[in-house]
Amino acid sequence: MLNSAAAIETAIVGSSGMAQRRAIAKAITLLESTRADHRTQADELLTALLPHTGRSFRLGISGVPGVGKSTFIETLGLFLIEQGHRVAVLTIDPSSTVSGGSILGDKTRMERLSVHEQAYIRPSPSSGTLGGVAEKTREAMLVCEAAGYDVVIVETVGVGQSETAVAGMTDMFVLMQLPNAGDDLQAIKKGVMEIADLVVINKADLDRDAATRAQAQITSALRLFGHHGNPAHAEMLKAAHAAPGSPEAEMRFWQPQVMQLSALLGTGVDAFWTSVTRFRQLQTANGRLGTRREKQALSWMWERIDAGLKHAFRHHPAVRELLPDTIAQVAAGRLPASTAARQLLAAQTSRAP
Amino acid sequence: MLNSAAAIETAIVGSSGMAQRRAIAKAITLLESTRADHRTQADELLTALLPHTGRSFRLGISGVPGVGKSTFIETLGLFLIEQGHRVAVLTIDPSSTVSGGSILGDKTRMERLSVHEQAYIRPSPSSGTLGGVAEKTREAMLVCEAAGYDVVIVETVGVGQSETAVAGMTDMFVLMQLPNAGDDLQAIKKGVMEIADLVVINKADLDRDAATRAQAQITSALRLFGHHGNPAHAEMLKAAHAAPGSPEAEMRFWQPQVMQLSALLGTGVDAFWTSVTRFRQLQTANGRLGTRREKQALSWMWERIDAGLKHAFRHHPAVRELLPDTIAQVAAGRLPASTAARQLLAAQTSRAP
Repeated sequence: MLNSAAAIETAIVGSSGMAQRRAIAKAITLLESTRADHRTQADELLTALLPHTGRSFRLGISGVPGVGKSTFIETLGLFLIEQGHRVAVLTIDPSSTVSGGSILGDKTRMERLSVHEQAYIRPSPSSGTLGGVAEKTREAMLVCEAAGYDVVIVETVGVGQSETAVAGMTDMFVLMQLPNAGDDLQAIKKGVMEIADLVVINKADLDRDAATRAQAQITSALRLFGHHGNPAHAEMLKAAHAAPGSPEAEMRFWQPQVMQLSALLGTGVDAFWTSVTRFRQLQTANGRLGTRREKQALSWMWERIDAGLKHAFRHHPAVRELLPDTIAQVAAGRLPASTAARQLLAAQTSRAP
Repeated sequence: MLNSAAAIETAIVGSSGMAQRRAIAKAITLLESTRADHRTQADELLTALLPHTGRSFRLGISGVPGVGKSTFIETLGLFLIEQGHRVAVLTIDPSSTVSGGSILGDKTRMERLSVHEQAYIRPSPSSGTLGGVAEKTREAMLVCEAAGYDVVIVETVGVGQSETAVAGMTDMFVLMQLPNAGDDLQAIKKGVMEIADLVVINKADLDRDAATRAQAQITSALRLFGHHGNPAHAEMLKAAHAAPGSPEAEMRFWQPQVMQLSALLGTGVDAFWTSVTRFRQLQTANGRLGTRREKQALSWMWERIDAGLKHAFRHHPAVRELLPDTIAQVAAGRLPASTAARQLLAAQTSRAP
């Protein structure tokens, strides 16, 4: 019977097959519930699962609709299972909060991977803000890790801030592009390229020349935008010029890379995984993997605190009363923004909610 | 006597020369004061000045130390005064909060502009967080506008988030680069290029070839990173293909540009101002200037609210008590981040500060 946090935890960590699957589903349902007593149970469960988490590799994958994410993830997932891995696929679909979901709307998606007993696929939570959806997905990731999935893929479409959310919960962030990425119409969304650890040009078989051109363009843009402001830059340069095998070379940092592949034909998927493995080894050796996870956990905490503070502020009766008129006056240029902020903050503190 | 907000306001709006200068200095001192009664007076003053603001053009300029910002701003300022403008220069120097200021540390800086009666130069506020410094600068900008300065230049170095702060308070954001910007060591800080409306390659006279190469590289990178995710993209393409003089062409949107100049020789400064003027006309005609200012005012309000909420949270006794241990546990992976956030938020609300 899965009616307590402890029972669910035992089933997730200690069972396998269908029993484990049921426990995972139950856990994720609990995490996504908005009932206060469920939330208390969910917090208990998460705390109990935490010692069993953190041993998987967390891979974020993003790309516009049509870039071939599903095909790629299915091919990659089957390849990894063949090598003895267990693969979980989670999705953050910001549009699902409006339309009820588009990424997994197509039932035939990842047909072969979804029925594989070594794979677990969970669609995006379908309601709430992006922050809320990201929180549920982060928690679902912990559940999958505790259940022994050692590769967790978090997928998203290039909408709003969802890439930043995915990059903020994964060890490595991969951006998928089409071969014509260099054209005006396929230009890359602001701020996304700079968080990519690896850029994959999919469907390279369709137009080899365009793919090679895109690879060169993106490589050069990454170099131009990549380094400055990075405190480790000097260190990176030193490491890059170190003799292979020397201690300095061991300290090398990952440089974002661009590669071509065809998910449909399956070509380049092994080279992709070799790159991911190299990334993982390098970031483990230089300590960046641990630092990244620590930072992610802390910024996740602060992000949820911020969201909670804003929610309480916006729902405070005195603030709700003043807000519409204040916004109108600031927008019209009749009230200085900083004065407005001080007035609203004073209204919240001077009256009990 | 400048001892009330009303007296200062009258002197700023209604006087000139030294009397006005004294009133401006008094107003800015009042804005920067941390005393509660001064803050009340400052809010009164800002509200009174607001109807006299908004008629200037707000120009943000950023670049690393050594790029030649001072020389450029002095040359530009003298050029503008010759054309009948009055020019105010404000500075956001994030390092000043640590070192007491570097941008204006050199007393010989902008020697000719600083003594000109049609110019007003004010260094960065020298204490507080970047958010606080930015707020003071925004408020000082309103004071200068009310005093009739019709070009306000806000300058910053490329440190931390200061460019974003400057771009968030100006009508146009200009990034200054050296001719060797394409080299690895001169690569562009993440996230800054994408907020630039205009990139200026200074010291182009030193190496004409390098400057031309950098211009081509940056232009191509801007094209690659510029459009996608912009809802106005389709509209922009339509406008770009419209016949000159047609209503569609009138609706054209600004495309970020890259230009060369030499601030020292003064070459290219007139072309720079022609670009700025074209930007201003275009953005006024298509309504973007007004929208940008409205958005800036509202996000400024929300930013100050966020800062206020965070400050109150971090200084709440119950939170202060729990925070160090909670952070340690989250960082060590013993407490889920979302659970930690819920616990801290509950601690704040359950006990009166």
